[in-house]
Formats: sequence, structure tokens, C-alpha cells
Amino acid sequence: MEKYGGYSQEIIEVLEKEGIEIYDKIKIIKNGKEYVGLLMPRPFYGDPCCIVIKLSNGYNIGVAFNEKTKVILLEKSTGTRSRATEVDELEKSTGEVAIVNTGGTISSKVDYLTGAVYPAFSTKDLYGMVPEIKNIASIRARPLFNILSEDMTPKHWEIMAKVACEEFKKGAIGVVFTHGTDTMHFSAAALAFAVQRASGPIVFVGAQRSPDRPSSDAFLNLLSAVITAKKAPFAESVIVMHGESSDTYCYVHRGVKSRKLHTSRRDAFKSVNDVPLAKVENGKIIILNDRYVPREEKPDNISLKAKFDEKVLLVKVYPGCNPEIIRWAIDCKYHGIVLEATGLGHVPQPMVKYVEEAVSEGIPVAVTSQCIWGRVNLNVYRRGVELIKAGAIPCEDMTPETALVKLMWILAQTRELEEVRELMLKNFVYEINERLLL
Amino acid sequence: MEKYGGYSQEIIEVLEKEGIEIYDKIKIIKNGKEYVGLLMPRPFYGDPCCIVIKLSNGYNIGVAFNEKTKVILLEKSTGTRSRATEVDELEKSTGEVAIVNTGGTISSKVDYLTGAVYPAFSTKDLYGMVPEIKNIASIRARPLFNILSEDMTPKHWEIMAKVACEEFKKGAIGVVFTHGTDTMHFSAAALAFAVQRASGPIVFVGAQRSPDRPSSDAFLNLLSAVITAKKAPFAESVIVMHGESSDTYCYVHRGVKSRKLHTSRRDAFKSVNDVPLAKVENGKIIILNDRYVPREEKPDNISLKAKFDEKVLLVKVYPGCNPEIIRWAIDCKYHGIVLEATGLGHVPQPMVKYVEEAVSEGIPVAVTSQCIWGRVNLNVYRRGVELIKAGAIPCEDMTPETALVKLMWILAQTRELEEVRELMLKNFVYEINERLLL
Repeated sequence: MEKYGGYSQEIIEVLEKEGIEIYDKIKIIKNGKEYVGLLMPRPFYGDPCCIVIKLSNGYNIGVAFNEKTKVILLEKSTGTRSRATEVDELEKSTGEVAIVNTGGTISSKVDYLTGAVYPAFSTKDLYGMVPEIKNIASIRARPLFNILSEDMTPKHWEIMAKVACEEFKKGAIGVVFTHGTDTMHFSAAALAFAVQRASGPIVFVGAQRSPDRPSSDAFLNLLSAVITAKKAPFAESVIVMHGESSDTYCYVHRGVKSRKLHTSRRDAFKSVNDVPLAKVENGKIIILNDRYVPREEKPDNISLKAKFDEKVLLVKVYPGCNPEIIRWAIDCKYHGIVLEATGLGHVPQPMVKYVEEAVSEGIPVAVTSQCIWGRVNLNVYRRGVELIKAGAIPCEDMTPETALVKLMWILAQTRELEEVRELMLKNFVYEINERLLL
Repeated sequence: MEKYGGYSQEIIEVLEKEGIEIYDKIKIIKNGKEYVGLLMPRPFYGDPCCIVIKLSNGYNIGVAFNEKTKVILLEKSTGTRSRATEVDELEKSTGEVAIVNTGGTISSKVDYLTGAVYPAFSTKDLYGMVPEIKNIASIRARPLFNILSEDMTPKHWEIMAKVACEEFKKGAIGVVFTHGTDTMHFSAAALAFAVQRASGPIVFVGAQRSPDRPSSDAFLNLLSAVITAKKAPFAESVIVMHGESSDTYCYVHRGVKSRKLHTSRRDAFKSVNDVPLAKVENGKIIILNDRYVPREEKPDNISLKAKFDEKVLLVKVYPGCNPEIIRWAIDCKYHGIVLEATGLGHVPQPMVKYVEEAVSEGIPVAVTSQCIWGRVNLNVYRRGVELIKAGAIPCEDMTPETALVKLMWILAQTRELEEVRELMLKNFVYEINERLLL
């Protein structure tokens, strides 16, 4: 009964009796109400007694089945063979777009025992749930990790970078990573630096609601991610997520210029100090920003520098903060420090001499702002001038997160202070916006 | 020549010859161009050879004076005695609104030697520059500190809280603090907790451009702050700053629900997880949020709890962060930890046992989100559930900054773990928004 994807025996019997298969258009009648949509597979779902259909507006809903529920076949699926079987074969195939699953809410389900959500779906399942993808591009599905993104580390970025590079070299024209949203902007920034001159975009996509919830944003996000991977003219590491809270369109944010800015909204990701690269709406991609890295014609032009140095400490300053934390970093042999300073890039007066000390020990200190928006400027106020004298590196309009990832990437290449400074201020992939747009 | 407030001898001679005094309406003719406005005092300005006038649109401009510059008296000031003299007497007077100067850009000038900006003006000077204040309320000016706000510490909050309390007890119906913008939201949150049941608002006001620049936002901000102090129906600790980038109106943000979110824009402050309390436009205050603490009728009802415990560590988590930092905090005998976690309130798996360790040592660990917007929820994902089990305190929709200030305030009252937890989750001054508005 594999083709029914895990429904209860009771439901399967009704479906078989009516000659209904997965992806057929059906009508469910229950308590006087009618629900029309495509029958979806439910491989790992919590409740096998709930029939899931995809409405014409793209939403998936579940209808709890009981003995009074009527199910009627409206239209057979147009596929000539069982799509469920096709899905099963995906992992072996090659394709224009590689979908690499790393875990996160987009591939999660609710654990009904604890009420918590944990990763469970494979890329295959996701593809099964968004059959429209098939019309956009041929897909190669590749499971990689199955972790929530708070557990992502620079080691995972290294593996993802290598996998992306591999897929491009094999002929993919776009690589999609399904990923938890918590640290997606860190990963997207990491791959922007690690993989350059690719023949297509690296697209990070996630969901704020797991796909087993009718209101999940996973479907539109994944579809938009594949459209971006296939059709976008740019070859950057980007984030594709909802553009507003309703299920209408997605934005494509530049990975190095993006941040998760809401704990729960579907449109949690925003471009920071930049405009989104594109909007994906009604299956089309609309370019919003013409400053981008174009696709390379030859896959072999790709450049891979996948190493990251984890020994970087991010320090957010605040009134009453103890500058001794910098001494701790020096004692722990950290290789670099990113200050999340106040305003234009300021720290309390007692911290200046610690910054000086770190720099004199060969540890680069990069200055960013906790304001998030705007540019660091150490030339306006006295404290800024003191930090410059102490040897700090002002990180222009990079977010603390992007500066952190960049410093980790640079320190894996060189520990020479002046070289680090020069590379931190070099604009590799539009992570610095010389003219602030907002 | 005090009444000319520091202009060059050359300018003073011309003004005296024409019978012009400060605040008279004048016309300056230079290189065929005409400038009309009120002559302003320039007490501590960098260039004494520049005549400053206030245009009818409220902007102050400077016109460099040379021997070909003509200055004509258009209209005498309506004041019956010299306003410059009145300004000098302010510090001795009592008033409905106390303006307490703590420093910051709003009372800064450019150091032309280094190009940097440092604090220089007294409250008196600011008042002299916004004469409209006189029509709003009687003012008592009180100098307190002269520091940039990156140097504010919990010790300064304590002094400010005591000063505010003192002024209310003396009969002030509102207290305005001129303050640097970098950490203004920390100070505003601190005073919200420290001073409760006041007879009027505590208003923090600053500027993103120093008042010696023609484009300064100091004038509108200060005027709006005084209007708020005098007319607002609420008695909260608030921030009054530009509502948009042009010089049109100000927003009144609740101190515990506000954050500096741009390094340089005039409208850098935004309400977070709340709507602004009010808008100040054309001299009027328009209430936008009807959830507020009203003014107490009797000044003696005021409650002062001015102590803050500085031994609180703010830790922002990120991929690759070393959980040993929590061990460092334990070793350094910190009294509390605020985690700036990812998403709904998550940390990397290895950090959970460190959180457990801190809590078992009697150190409260409060969980906030680096997303800034939205609510922490530790019941959705497994990591959240683990943190709850480890004893962490989920800080609802408080920003990391507000949670930090609140924990410092609570720890100065009790170190008993369960009491700290209870107080952290108690809603004192609308720092928790039970129903998220955005």
C-alpha cells in the first residue's frame, strides 16, 4: 500500500474502493461540508486517520476521517505512471536542480508525545508534497543531515560547501538546501564566501511551520526555491522565504545581507542594508536588485574555499559589560573577535585597552553594530577614533553575523593581521554595500 | 557681550551697530543671496564667525560672515527682556518640566581638530536653541553628566533614577533626560523599572546629528520631549525621537519596548513588539496605544528601587560558539546570564548542560531571541523543552536588552532562584506584551 503513503487501513480501503490514487483530484464530504483538492501522500504523519488534500490555493489541509466521511473521485491524475513511484526513484537520478536536505522545520513533524517538533521527512517526502516542482525542473534529491539549525556548526558549512560544489560540477544549475531557519543566514553567508563563481545559485529554504500543519509555509517556499535555482540569473548564495505573512510570494535575499528578524512570522527573513535580489510570484522570478554575481558559463570555473576557523568570539557590548571577556578570549587562544558594538561602533571606555591588547597579541578585532541596520563609522565620535587607534577593523555595513562568518573564513586562510584586515574590508560577494540603500 | 552668545568681535560689532539682539528677526544678505530667520545664540560653537539663524521651517542654518555680508534687522523679538538672561537663570529656577542633561550627541559639538564629536553644551544652551519650549512649560534645567552613552553603566542608571524621583517629589510633572542614543533604550528600560508610580513621564531624548549641524534632529526631538513631559497622560519611561527621516514628527516609544535599530538615521529608534505610545506632531500629542501606566495624582506615591546588579552576562549564541563561556561566567561569580538565543529561543546542543550547571549553581539563565521581533517559545521544539528542563527562564517577548536590564534590577532585590524566575515573568511596566501586536 506504499502508493497511499501511510494512511490508515480504513482510509486505504475507501480509496481503493473508489479507485482513487495519490494526486487524483477528489471531493471529501463530511458533516455537510465539501473539500476539493489533490490527494496527497502522508508518509510519516502523526495521524494516519486524516486525509490530506492540496487545495487549489496551494494550501494543504487535513480532514479527519470517520465512518460518515464520503470520498469521491473527481479526476484522475494526469501522470501516466504512479508519481509515488517516481518520488521513490528520485535519489538515484540526476537533475538540473539538486535538493539537499539538512533538516529543520521544513522537514519536521510534531512529536505528539512531547508536543515538540523534530526532523523526520526526507527530501523525497517534501518533493512528494509539492508536485508542481516537477514542472519547473528535473530534481536530484540528496539527504545530507537531519538536524535543527541551532546545531549547525562551521564544520557543517564546510560539508555543505563541498556538496554544493560537487553538485555544480556534476552539472546542476542550482542547488537548494532545505535548512532550519534559526541559523540559516549564517549558513547562507558561509556558502557565499566558500563557493564562488558557480554556474548557478545556492538556495537556502526553510519553513516557520512544519509541513504537517495546514498553514505551513514549506510548500510555497520550496517551490519558489526551485524556481530560483532554475531560473535566476544570479549565482549567489541566497535565502528564499515568504515575503509577507500570507501565502502570496517569496523574496530572494542575498545570504550575506539577510537576517532572521522574527521568531515566528512566515516573513521572518529580511534583507538588511540591501534590497532583496528578487521576488518569486506566480511561478515567475522578478529581479529587484541589479547588483549581483551572474552565473558562470563553465561549471569548472567554480572556486571552493570551504574552511572556517571556529576560534572566533562574538562579543555584544552593553552598559556594565565586563571587558575582561576579551582577556578570556586572549587566554583561550581565540584567533579573532567580532564586537557587536553600540551605535556607529562604540564600546565602553574601559574596553578600548583590551581591544588594543588583543590586537597587539595578533588577534584581529572586527567592529560591527548591534543596531543591525546602517553602517559602522569610527570617524565620527572620539570613541571610534580611539578604537581605530587600538587597531580595530570597522566592518562597514556588514551585520555582526556576516562579519563573524567572514572572519572565520578569512582566518582559515591567513592569520597575518594586516592581511586579515585587508580581506575583511574587501568586498567579495556584495557583503559590503558601498552606497547604503536604506 | 554675553547676550550675543559667543560670536566673533567682528559680528558683534555689526549686530550692535544695527541694534540687533538674540532672537530678533533678521535678514542676512551675502553673495546676492538672502537668508531670513531668528538670530540664535552660539555659545560653544566651533566657528564664531558664522551667524546662526533659525528659519521659519525650524531648521537652524549657519552663514559664514565676511566683510561683504550685510545684516538687517527686520523685527525685534517680542520678549520684554533679554531671553539670553532668562536662559542664564534657568538652573536656579523650579519648573513643571525638569530637563536633566547627561551628555550625548544632543549636547555635543564637532571637534574641528580631530573631526570627532564630543559633548559640550549644557542644558541651558539647548534651551536657548529651542525657544519654543518656553511656550510649552516652565523649565528647570539640571546638568548631571556629560558623557557619551556608550559609557553609561548601571551606576549611572541608579543616579538618574534618584534624580528623576527627586524632581517629581519637588513637583515636576515630567522629567526629560537628554542622553546619547547608543544605549538610550537600556537607560529608558532601567528607569522604567527603577521609578514606578510617578506623577508624570520620564522622557529620554537624543539626537543623531549634533545641534551645531543645520540638519540636526535635536530641536524637534527636544521640543517633542518637553511636549510629552508636559502633556502626555502616561507616566512611563519613554524615548522621544524622530518618527521618520524628515523633520516632521516624533514617536514616543515605551522604554522597555524600544531599540536603536539604525546606526545613523534620525528615525533610528523603533518600538519592538509593541506600537509606539504616541506621536508628537505640530505641537500636539496623539495617543496611539491605550495600554499605558497613567500619571499618579500624588507625587508621594512614587516608588523608587534604584539598585542594579552589574554581574549579569549577556551571551549571544552562534554556530561554533563555545559553551565554555558559561563556565567562565560561573567561575567569575556572575549572578545571572541572559542568553541571546536563536529563533524561538534555541542554543546549540552542547550548551544545554552548561545552562543546567549554571542553574544548579544558583545562577538564573534567562532566554531571549536574537531575532529581536517575536516571542520566545520553548515549548515548540525539542531544544526548547530541554532548556526548560535545564531550568532556563523564557523571557516572553522582551528584547535581550530589556531582559538584561530587568534581570540586573531583580538581582539587586533577590538572588533566590525561584523568586527571580517569578519576578522575571511578572509584567511590571508592560515590558511583556501578552498578546503580540505585530
